[in-house]
Amino acid sequence: MEKMIAFGNSKKSDSDSNKDNKSLSDGVINLDQGDPTMFEEYWMKMKDRCTVVIPAWDLMSYFSDTKNVCWFLEPELEKAIKALHGAIGNAATEERYIVVGTGSSQLCQAALFALSSLSEVKPVSIVAAVPYYSTYVEEASYLQSKLYKWEGDARTFDKEGPYIEMVTSPNNPDGTMREPVVNRKEGGKVIHDFAYYWPHYTPITRREDQDLMLFTFSKITGHAGSRIGWALVKDIDVAKKMVQYLTVNSIGVSKESQIRATKILNELTKTCRTQSESFFEYGYEKMNSRWERLREVVDSGDAFTIPNHPQAFCNFFGKTISSAPAFAWLGLKAERDLGSLLKENKVLTRGGDRCGCAKKYVRVSMLSRDDDYDVFLHRLATIKDLKCIEP
Amino acid sequence: MEKMIAFGNSKKSDSDSNKDNKSLSDGVINLDQGDPTMFEEYWMKMKDRCTVVIPAWDLMSYFSDTKNVCWFLEPELEKAIKALHGAIGNAATEERYIVVGTGSSQLCQAALFALSSLSEVKPVSIVAAVPYYSTYVEEASYLQSKLYKWEGDARTFDKEGPYIEMVTSPNNPDGTMREPVVNRKEGGKVIHDFAYYWPHYTPITRREDQDLMLFTFSKITGHAGSRIGWALVKDIDVAKKMVQYLTVNSIGVSKESQIRATKILNELTKTCRTQSESFFEYGYEKMNSRWERLREVVDSGDAFTIPNHPQAFCNFFGKTISSAPAFAWLGLKAERDLGSLLKENKVLTRGGDRCGCAKKYVRVSMLSRDDDYDVFLHRLATIKDLKCIEP
Repeated sequence: MEKMIAFGNSKKSDSDSNKDNKSLSDGVINLDQGDPTMFEEYWMKMKDRCTVVIPAWDLMSYFSDTKNVCWFLEPELEKAIKALHGAIGNAATEERYIVVGTGSSQLCQAALFALSSLSEVKPVSIVAAVPYYSTYVEEASYLQSKLYKWEGDARTFDKEGPYIEMVTSPNNPDGTMREPVVNRKEGGKVIHDFAYYWPHYTPITRREDQDLMLFTFSKITGHAGSRIGWALVKDIDVAKKMVQYLTVNSIGVSKESQIRATKILNELTKTCRTQSESFFEYGYEKMNSRWERLREVVDSGDAFTIPNHPQAFCNFFGKTISSAPAFAWLGLKAERDLGSLLKENKVLTRGGDRCGCAKKYVRVSMLSRDDDYDVFLHRLATIKDLKCIEP
Repeated sequence: MEKMIAFGNSKKSDSDSNKDNKSLSDGVINLDQGDPTMFEEYWMKMKDRCTVVIPAWDLMSYFSDTKNVCWFLEPELEKAIKALHGAIGNAATEERYIVVGTGSSQLCQAALFALSSLSEVKPVSIVAAVPYYSTYVEEASYLQSKLYKWEGDARTFDKEGPYIEMVTSPNNPDGTMREPVVNRKEGGKVIHDFAYYWPHYTPITRREDQDLMLFTFSKITGHAGSRIGWALVKDIDVAKKMVQYLTVNSIGVSKESQIRATKILNELTKTCRTQSESFFEYGYEKMNSRWERLREVVDSGDAFTIPNHPQAFCNFFGKTISSAPAFAWLGLKAERDLGSLLKENKVLTRGGDRCGCAKKYVRVSMLSRDDDYDVFLHRLATIKDLKCIEP
């Protein structure tokens, strides 16, 4: 739990930014959080295309649409979300309730509240297959709720009673495509976290049609500061309970962020088939190039491992492509704490132990600005051989 | 708990708005939530003075200031908050940490988490003197946390062990000025909710200097849709734990809302001494006029009661003024369910039972748009005499 505080204290400030060779070799590089600043460059090129203008008298009420189960969801955002999923083909939105949240973290907690509140037996066990997104542990534990309890790895889960399995696909931290692993006939619910199921990260191989699917604006376009996420929910009782959570937790979600997300998502939809302008084309090229460079460094030495992500036919791009996940799940061939080793080399990453695995693994954000990514590869290249890391 | 869902389903939609005499006499008026739409008129008069313009490439990162304990607080918002408190004289900001939240609801829960996490004995009892803000009950109960437990009325609280007292001053729902009532020598912490301690609602009689003070943008300027609140916190460990809560709960707070709040709060500070433009002058005149009209209706019959709010010298206005609270705590002289009676007359209010009191009381929002307020007074006038309400 104490790790959470480090979220705010560890990243270098803008003034430390690596703008020249001196700082390129000196500064601490934070690739622990997945701060998606990589995409700023694209939006700068768009200039004032998605600029929002909000007069002081607008968006004042708590309410957006009192006839909607999610009464604080701006109707235009609902339309924009449906249009984008339709254009990309990654998720079904028909006959579903859309619940907006202050990022998908808040929605994940709303979903835990909803599913466990509706369970007759409590606490409900919460599980995820290792390696899992470390924040799930914190989300399920910090308030010591009697409604649910974190039970760790889904693969070794053998407790009786109701459970919720978190399925993240592509997975954070290792980029693999995931399915539920517990699969009991009764008592199981699944929350599908599709934060990274977008064509710049992974081939879109099917239109997902799950009961409860989470998405986040942050990891599509890079607008993490807006704190906008959404859930596509089949069951009205679950949707209502999620809305109840969001009502008590924060009385809804920022209207300014919703308006801005609407404008930007609509732009993605509008330009997604125009190769020169498409955000997803841009994003895929960028991610793919970063992965190629990372593989070169790893393959040129004998110290590190990274997963092989199989190629697949992407229905959106209409061709076979590689995955280019938002995080690299970097491993050491030697039995040594990789997080500490990288920290000695002034690169901050998330230790594998926080994801339920050994410390020889770390999660590395692939979404930093160019200069930080360059420094990371440079430092990695200096320690790529086993002989460099022997004690 | 089931009452919470009604938040979204009961308010009339814009299309039902009372724009003519027909709908003035027909529509359901929702004065249950304190949706502060009354202030729209002021901001419309300001035209484009506080319009914000946000390009797509701006505000993308999770981080605002990595050197600040509250790493997601925009530095300009911090300055604006300090400047406004300085200009109004309602609260000390020196030697304090400012924590921004998605409304003060989220901050209240962050404070419960922080204070109870730092307590050796758990669960910590949560209390508030009746009549209390009904949402405190929900905030302290919905997740069934083992950290804290709602224990109801502070005046009858006699349980041993650590406790947190919620002190709302002026109080929601009855507008009275409040002090802590438990006052044990040990084990007690106080959260001061100063949502309404602004000169348009109440005389500013002193500069508050408490350990943990909550404020909300919604109830100052009427921008409820922005979901911005802040806490002024003396103890760094409490501030850090609150930030930890906000990190896990929603990874910070909308940057767009923070930028807009900054602009609007700065405008309040800039114009607060210019009588013709001052928001607080406007707000006070408006609130005071609504209260005078309400008192006229109540005093002209024999069915209802409302509290007497004593006058006091307001340091901000430099003169003696009356309180003009954001809610009216309306009572019946007869022993009857006032909420039901008003509902029969198509006025929705919050029942006194939700605030820990008898059903002969209700909380009525004084912050609706003019036409809704007019309809409310009109309907109240038709039932102002005891003989009208006899079964």
